[in-house]
Amino acid sequence: MQNVVLVIAYKGTRYCGWQVQPGKPTVQEIIQNAGAGVFGKTPSVTGCSRTDSGVHAKGFVALISPAEGSNELPLESIPLAMNALLPDDIAVISAKAAPEGFHPRYDAKGKEYSYAVRNSRTRDPFCDDMSWLCPKRIDESLLAPLCEEFVGTKDFKAFMASGSKITDTVRTVFSFTAEREGDMIYFRVSADGFLYNMVRIMVGTVIDAALKGKTAADIRRVIESKDRAQAGRTAPAKGLCLEKVFY
Amino acid sequence: MQNVVLVIAYKGTRYCGWQVQPGKPTVQEIIQNAGAGVFGKTPSVTGCSRTDSGVHAKGFVALISPAEGSNELPLESIPLAMNALLPDDIAVISAKAAPEGFHPRYDAKGKEYSYAVRNSRTRDPFCDDMSWLCPKRIDESLLAPLCEEFVGTKDFKAFMASGSKITDTVRTVFSFTAEREGDMIYFRVSADGFLYNMVRIMVGTVIDAALKGKTAADIRRVIESKDRAQAGRTAPAKGLCLEKVFY
Repeated sequence: MQNVVLVIAYKGTRYCGWQVQPGKPTVQEIIQNAGAGVFGKTPSVTGCSRTDSGVHAKGFVALISPAEGSNELPLESIPLAMNALLPDDIAVISAKAAPEGFHPRYDAKGKEYSYAVRNSRTRDPFCDDMSWLCPKRIDESLLAPLCEEFVGTKDFKAFMASGSKITDTVRTVFSFTAEREGDMIYFRVSADGFLYNMVRIMVGTVIDAALKGKTAADIRRVIESKDRAQAGRTAPAKGLCLEKVFY
Repeated sequence: MQNVVLVIAYKGTRYCGWQVQPGKPTVQEIIQNAGAGVFGKTPSVTGCSRTDSGVHAKGFVALISPAEGSNELPLESIPLAMNALLPDDIAVISAKAAPEGFHPRYDAKGKEYSYAVRNSRTRDPFCDDMSWLCPKRIDESLLAPLCEEFVGTKDFKAFMASGSKITDTVRTVFSFTAEREGDMIYFRVSADGFLYNMVRIMVGTVIDAALKGKTAADIRRVIESKDRAQAGRTAPAKGLCLEKVFY
């Protein structure tokens, strides 16, 4: 059986992220097990990213390399066959033949994330695992100029979780927008790559700035400081969703 | 501290229903524990209904009877104080003083449930724990006359889970409707009371009838048979939501 590229959607609430960790529920392990059921042997599974505990995905890309002697399946029947074995909160959206030598992480040209903030004083048990509940009224007209400051090729060291060992902290943010729909504020950000916790620190910083009446110039100073302590809170994982990977 | 009536919303996915069961996660236990945190002593908690494992609620009614010597709290601060201790998937919506002798189950004059069917061939990990996924196309124009047959005071014995010990199986269904919104079909049913699994068997029977081209007369014959075996499938718990309790 040839290598297969899957697009996978999952709700991360119940999982300790993508990557297999002994004794903890992970999406990678569940996909491997469903793969074993479909192909007859456990395939090797490589993801496009290590998502954190509680983070969601609509367009996660994974490479499935079936083991020698696996069942041969038509590509188009793989989503249905795997979905029959997957729990409600993980689904295979599509399956395609993998290009020769394809690697879902190293070949990625960029990624797009969304981040959902619910701007309300009341709890909603049907949304609260998919968004950050911010009770203070946020003036959404303030958000666009704050987000705009992030766009471009910059050193985003101030927006990397402290303790991360990455040394090249320059990234290119293609776009960063915020839009209100009722109680919800949806951020969308795409970039050629992200530092550890970068989206969550960007969102936390923009929300903090909007609540405290700070300006785009303040955001610029935070970026230029390259100092994590100058940036705002790390927004919680549960509002974050990997929307798309670009190749 | 006086007795308090809470309206509670919860997403049932992670819970083995409302009622406390040793060693299993239940909503009642979580509410008791949050109550203990807020009142300083574990209150007695009485629910309006035993919801099944996986069933959701937007308007569950519970009576909180604080123990002797509990903290005195203004009513309006109870939702905020309890919500600070509750997990994302359970929320207190409101708190009111309990009328003298009030019992949330015995005093209920009726209840309203919703049931969500997702009529799609593709999985959605963000909805599939809140709806029944039916891949075969359902013609929604067939549903209204099928639902209409249930309205009135009738013996609903055919719509009670077999093994249930209830002997008075006559109930009055006030209304039963179905409406499509995109891929979703939302059923709503209100009645003076429901037999065990009644809504789920009603929905399963109507869906089966619509898919097989059966008519309102067929539904009438099923009701008149008083035979569970004549009715359709029991729709899964995860699509069901207790919307409202009438007093």
